[in-house]
Amino acid sequence: MTSRPLRFGVNYTPRTNWFHSWLDYRELRENLRADFRAIASLGLDHVRIFPLWAIMQPNRTLIRPQALADVADMATLAIDEGLDVCVDVFQGHLSSYDFLPSWVLSWHQSNIFSNPQVISGQRELIKRLAQALSSLPQADFPGVKNARPGEKGLIGLSLGNEIGQFAASRHPLRHEITVEESEAWLKQMFDTTREALPQGCHTHSYDDDLFFDPAHPFTPLQAVKYGDLTTIHSWIFGHLGRRLPADDPSYGFFARFLVELARSWGAKDMWMQEVGAPSPWISETGGRRFVTDTLSSLASAPSLRAITWWCSHNVSEDLADFPQLEYSLGLFDTKGQLRCLGADLRDFISDYVPGECIPLGAPVSLSANFGTDFTQIAEVRRASSPVKSGLFEAWLDQRVDNNFASICL
Amino acid sequence: MTSRPLRFGVNYTPRTNWFHSWLDYRELRENLRADFRAIASLGLDHVRIFPLWAIMQPNRTLIRPQALADVADMATLAIDEGLDVCVDVFQGHLSSYDFLPSWVLSWHQSNIFSNPQVISGQRELIKRLAQALSSLPQADFPGVKNARPGEKGLIGLSLGNEIGQFAASRHPLRHEITVEESEAWLKQMFDTTREALPQGCHTHSYDDDLFFDPAHPFTPLQAVKYGDLTTIHSWIFGHLGRRLPADDPSYGFFARFLVELARSWGAKDMWMQEVGAPSPWISETGGRRFVTDTLSSLASAPSLRAITWWCSHNVSEDLADFPQLEYSLGLFDTKGQLRCLGADLRDFISDYVPGECIPLGAPVSLSANFGTDFTQIAEVRRASSPVKSGLFEAWLDQRVDNNFASICL
Repeated sequence: MTSRPLRFGVNYTPRTNWFHSWLDYRELRENLRADFRAIASLGLDHVRIFPLWAIMQPNRTLIRPQALADVADMATLAIDEGLDVCVDVFQGHLSSYDFLPSWVLSWHQSNIFSNPQVISGQRELIKRLAQALSSLPQADFPGVKNARPGEKGLIGLSLGNEIGQFAASRHPLRHEITVEESEAWLKQMFDTTREALPQGCHTHSYDDDLFFDPAHPFTPLQAVKYGDLTTIHSWIFGHLGRRLPADDPSYGFFARFLVELARSWGAKDMWMQEVGAPSPWISETGGRRFVTDTLSSLASAPSLRAITWWCSHNVSEDLADFPQLEYSLGLFDTKGQLRCLGADLRDFISDYVPGECIPLGAPVSLSANFGTDFTQIAEVRRASSPVKSGLFEAWLDQRVDNNFASICL
Repeated sequence: MTSRPLRFGVNYTPRTNWFHSWLDYRELRENLRADFRAIASLGLDHVRIFPLWAIMQPNRTLIRPQALADVADMATLAIDEGLDVCVDVFQGHLSSYDFLPSWVLSWHQSNIFSNPQVISGQRELIKRLAQALSSLPQADFPGVKNARPGEKGLIGLSLGNEIGQFAASRHPLRHEITVEESEAWLKQMFDTTREALPQGCHTHSYDDDLFFDPAHPFTPLQAVKYGDLTTIHSWIFGHLGRRLPADDPSYGFFARFLVELARSWGAKDMWMQEVGAPSPWISETGGRRFVTDTLSSLASAPSLRAITWWCSHNVSEDLADFPQLEYSLGLFDTKGQLRCLGADLRDFISDYVPGECIPLGAPVSLSANFGTDFTQIAEVRRASSPVKSGLFEAWLDQRVDNNFASICL
């Protein structure tokens, strides 16, 4: 276990008009200081923020100066309120909605990972965004180079929220690519990002399809290879939720399982960049246990550097057509009032003492179940759902044998 | 021929950042008065303006008050400068780019013509937009009810620029519907529009696929049945341009041909809502003849009430990936300087005396070639391209026999 303190933060979701509020940034701005202050008051120390690609870059060669200024302004306000900031570049995808710009869609259909013109446009957006953020201080955050101790500032860029989804076979308008093409795309994006902001902690993210869909052109090895931290997004509804009942006690250990899975692929420093308590899988009364199990089991994970909850504020019921779960993921409601979930998170962070949990590195690692020859176990790891393959259950049984659940509670 | 004067106008295309400039309306606004004044100075008396649907209504139940205010403000400025204004609602489609909102795309893929929830959202946008425009005076324009003579104001709503394209078989992400569904959609949209703005001249528009694709779920009979005027969009590159050389003399008569085609389906009062001089089919030096032939042949068409050129301003070369022709369709360049095309249009309008052209109603109608039994000739009319079917050529031969080309020049 690292001696450096684990960092806790949240993915910032504007409480009025969700991310559509970028279209009315002056109105959005009225809530920002109060929202960031409320977030910091829970003991959280960082946020991840999400511009929308189509608003930033409505034409391939039009990157709106005002949009860049708005993102920089939001980041500045967050830093002012004591939060470090990670900026996701290509949204791309958020909470079931896709936001690709018109210049890659329909009559202009172009592969966002392999088309050279699209890539040149993406690189330009990274450069311009980096430039707009370049006057911000660098955060003292895992993965950031040469930060001043205790400095609040910019963490770095994340390529885009789970943007690899667009290449998955389950995507309705799939941008089909090979592993070689995903590799080339990641290399170009990271080269551009590192050149633009050399000190930053830059990452990319993906949903757990990357781990469980053997046909996925983005791979676990890339999750480990690219980025200053290996990010993980943990959502229980995808696999576990299909066959387990509400408030099943195993839900609280899925995030840690994914950490171990990433570690089995060679991940070193990691960032649990999204984890949330989706209803109805986690009920109103089951929230506290889920939060505690999730954070306790994560807190003991070697090399896990940061946990970023999804999300800060509920999606307003005034907005239509979101999957039902998205309306109640917030630590705060749409009026900015703290919800039980937020209080549970605050209480955990407040009680949390680094190092107090027993280090559970080797014994809980997947290698204990499946050996250390990653090539040999790759098939079972990536063959299918972790539920179907029995991988999660086997790992969990081992945890129960070791009385894991009680160790950190 | 009508004794009422023919109306000349232009489709307004912002000269900086094209329609993406809605994202920065305060900047766009700085050019508006000057642009509208320049348009009026050519003798043009109306504009058609184009909000983007995804910016107006980013979520099904979020219609942005600021976006409504921006559209109303643009309309007000145009009226202030002596122009009547038609507002297109669902863009939808413009110059090769599609702009559907995220709530009908990808994971939220919903048919924009038949999904009841989408339709309820569309009706709401029509109502809210109508409300935002309701304080404007009604234009004294063909199709408007009870207008004060000479009043400048709102013409009405057009459902969306060629929105039927999304249902055509050639569309890459087709919203497939039956003729019954297109009929039901049009009825609901027009019922809502008429209820919201009873006096307005409300229309819908389509490209000429509607006339030449027998599988198109939007039909010529609907073009005639729905709307206070039957609109026509005339683009020579679609059919003629595929086999005729640059500056072919027949190009200047295609718009009139479409008018006659619409008339053969029963169209009464008509609006040539889009016609333009696309390069390379019309060269720099061929522009004047094309403008003159097009406008002369149209000016003599019975029941044609208005002609609206496409478009006011060139698309800036700073914006990438438009089809080449879109960069040079403007009457003005991106600095607001008059182009030859604009001067040609101005000269025609300035010389134009209503009634001076010889009325060419009956002799040039398609009935002369193909009889008056529309059912009998429906097959040849809608079987295929007018070039392949010989319909345009036969009609044109008749025109040459009658020395039509020289009559109005």
